[in-house]
Amino acid sequence: LNIAVLAGDGIGPEIIDQAIKVVNAVCEKKGHEAIYTEALTGAAAIDAVGDPYPESTHKVCMDADAVLFGAIGHPKFDNDPNAKVRPEQGLLRMRKQLGLYANLRPVETFPSLLHKSPLRKDLVEGANFMCIRELTGGIYFGEKGRSEDGNMAFDNCVYTREEIERILKLGFEYAMKRNKKLTVVDKANVLETSRLWRQIAQEMAPNYPEVDTQYMFVDNAAMQIIQWPKNFDVMVTENMFGDILTDEASVITGSLGLLPSASIGLHTSVFEPIHGSYPQAAGKNIANPIATVLSAALMFEYAFDLKDEAEMIRKAVTASLEQSFVTEDIDKENAKKTSEVGDWLAD
Amino acid sequence: LNIAVLAGDGIGPEIIDQAIKVVNAVCEKKGHEAIYTEALTGAAAIDAVGDPYPESTHKVCMDADAVLFGAIGHPKFDNDPNAKVRPEQGLLRMRKQLGLYANLRPVETFPSLLHKSPLRKDLVEGANFMCIRELTGGIYFGEKGRSEDGNMAFDNCVYTREEIERILKLGFEYAMKRNKKLTVVDKANVLETSRLWRQIAQEMAPNYPEVDTQYMFVDNAAMQIIQWPKNFDVMVTENMFGDILTDEASVITGSLGLLPSASIGLHTSVFEPIHGSYPQAAGKNIANPIATVLSAALMFEYAFDLKDEAEMIRKAVTASLEQSFVTEDIDKENAKKTSEVGDWLAD
Ligand SMILES: CC(C)[C@H](C(=O)O)[C@@H](O)C(=O)O
Ligand SMILES: CC(C)[C@H](C(=O)O)[C@@H](O)C(=O)O
Repeated sequence: LNIAVLAGDGIGPEIIDQAIKVVNAVCEKKGHEAIYTEALTGAAAIDAVGDPYPESTHKVCMDADAVLFGAIGHPKFDNDPNAKVRPEQGLLRMRKQLGLYANLRPVETFPSLLHKSPLRKDLVEGANFMCIRELTGGIYFGEKGRSEDGNMAFDNCVYTREEIERILKLGFEYAMKRNKKLTVVDKANVLETSRLWRQIAQEMAPNYPEVDTQYMFVDNAAMQIIQWPKNFDVMVTENMFGDILTDEASVITGSLGLLPSASIGLHTSVFEPIHGSYPQAAGKNIANPIATVLSAALMFEYAFDLKDEAEMIRKAVTASLEQSFVTEDIDKENAKKTSEVGDWLAD
Repeated sequence: LNIAVLAGDGIGPEIIDQAIKVVNAVCEKKGHEAIYTEALTGAAAIDAVGDPYPESTHKVCMDADAVLFGAIGHPKFDNDPNAKVRPEQGLLRMRKQLGLYANLRPVETFPSLLHKSPLRKDLVEGANFMCIRELTGGIYFGEKGRSEDGNMAFDNCVYTREEIERILKLGFEYAMKRNKKLTVVDKANVLETSRLWRQIAQEMAPNYPEVDTQYMFVDNAAMQIIQWPKNFDVMVTENMFGDILTDEASVITGSLGLLPSASIGLHTSVFEPIHGSYPQAAGKNIANPIATVLSAALMFEYAFDLKDEAEMIRKAVTASLEQSFVTEDIDKENAKKTSEVGDWLAD
């Protein structure tokens, strides 16, 4: 198993270390060999070589079967809209260059964490859905710029049939594997790109007669996620709407520190926790490694097609939650250290 | 008081009737004279004259001191991305032609309705903030279109300094009138338009030294609204983000049927409930008129600068909630009819 390791900034390195312990334990048990190649990204890469996604890092990713990613971002780059180089640019470049067209985020609740949910327990208990966000198109990557005097700015949102078809296909396929309900989120009452999305979805839907395909405006989806999260099975949407809705969906579970993500690519795939680089906690050995460990489980499943291995990791995580062998964000009184949780899970 | 009345579709006419009763009662008490001019809009206008915002309606609005608006939308136009004329087009045209550049939505909780909130009571109780959404710019009104073969679509998001300054000014001024905290929501780590927003906000902030100005990415805002709604005082953002976030913010209160909105314009201002046309309930005399009645209160306050009159209406609404003289969405067992609630409030 040829794995590129991009630890990134803040708590990235600490949490990645725990995921690697767990991957090693699984490999030992099941007779696989994991080969890790580390590479720079984010603020760490800017500091070292002036580029948040250097060519050397891209090469490491291209040569790998999967990329395990920590987190990027550093406060020194915030609130400076005119900074020339930003960690985020590296992330966007990585997505584009690796062709990471689909970001998958399972939204799941954990019984032992339900009291952390901001929602009423009856609404969120048992919620379980998959958000699929288009990741290499739309307003993120369209032409953008300023007028000469700087007083007008624009960002163009563009989508092609090809881009839309491949992500919707993934949506329909996931719905088939799950509870056969697909919610296509758009703003077709206002945007031409959304009308193209909806048109293509309507063309494709007859090929999946078992799937109940629904169309929902993004403003309505932002409400439904809070009001009836259990009504969703698979949700698919474009890049900008996905950025907003997947983050909204992740907090309703109360388990932000536990949620993994997978970005499926044309060249390779990237597995990373959905939380950020949490700079205030960096180096303190207090960050929750579970989202990263569960990202490694997604890696076994999606990148290596090793479902048993993924299941082993998930069972270990469930056990740690049940026995409350967890970091301070989950259990303040009996808090374990990041590295202790990693050791326990590997063990 | 020269008021244009655009009742629109679905429950629009019924709820507008109740607001008019209340406005009349207030006018009688305080010695004002209200003159109403009705005009067509929405699906009703498409059916009658083939245009959701006919020139004759626009003229009525331009001649009025304020517009009281019901709701628009009809199921027969949904899921038809290629419908030539849609009710929404009328709404967007109205916004543009009347120069309704700012949509104000107070987000408020009502003690008697807290159990309806999807959020945990401790998180939402006492939440009270103002969402200000830019309403005539951005991706809603930029150039949009298709490639010749129809397989590529685009929507351009454009903002000018002028558009941004006038809405941020409103944001700062509201913050001064309230708790002096302004949250500017953007996506400055990705979008050029957002970077212009943030740059201008940073230029303006020193003119309001008492205001604590914060900058927040839209994905983070979508989380914070659910996790810490009480941390917001005034939030200001661009059109598309505002569409999503204001709807999200409105459901956390559990009182969607009670929330009014004001759209401040260059030529006149429009006051309307934030809920939709609720076609399933149309004609049944069961719809909740309170959001529309409270929109009339906003009208007294913003359009006519008559604060006592606005307060009278709000007191009546509070009393109806306390005594549970309300429609079935709030109290199933002792449900009153739409018209009964209107009579009671006017009385
Ligand atoms: C950091 C930022 C550019 C990024 C995005 O908007 O895609 C992040 O919010 C995410 O969701 O991964
Ligand atoms: C109907 C639609 C065009 C409209 C919008 O997106 O602005 C609505 O959602 C709103 O928020 O008033």
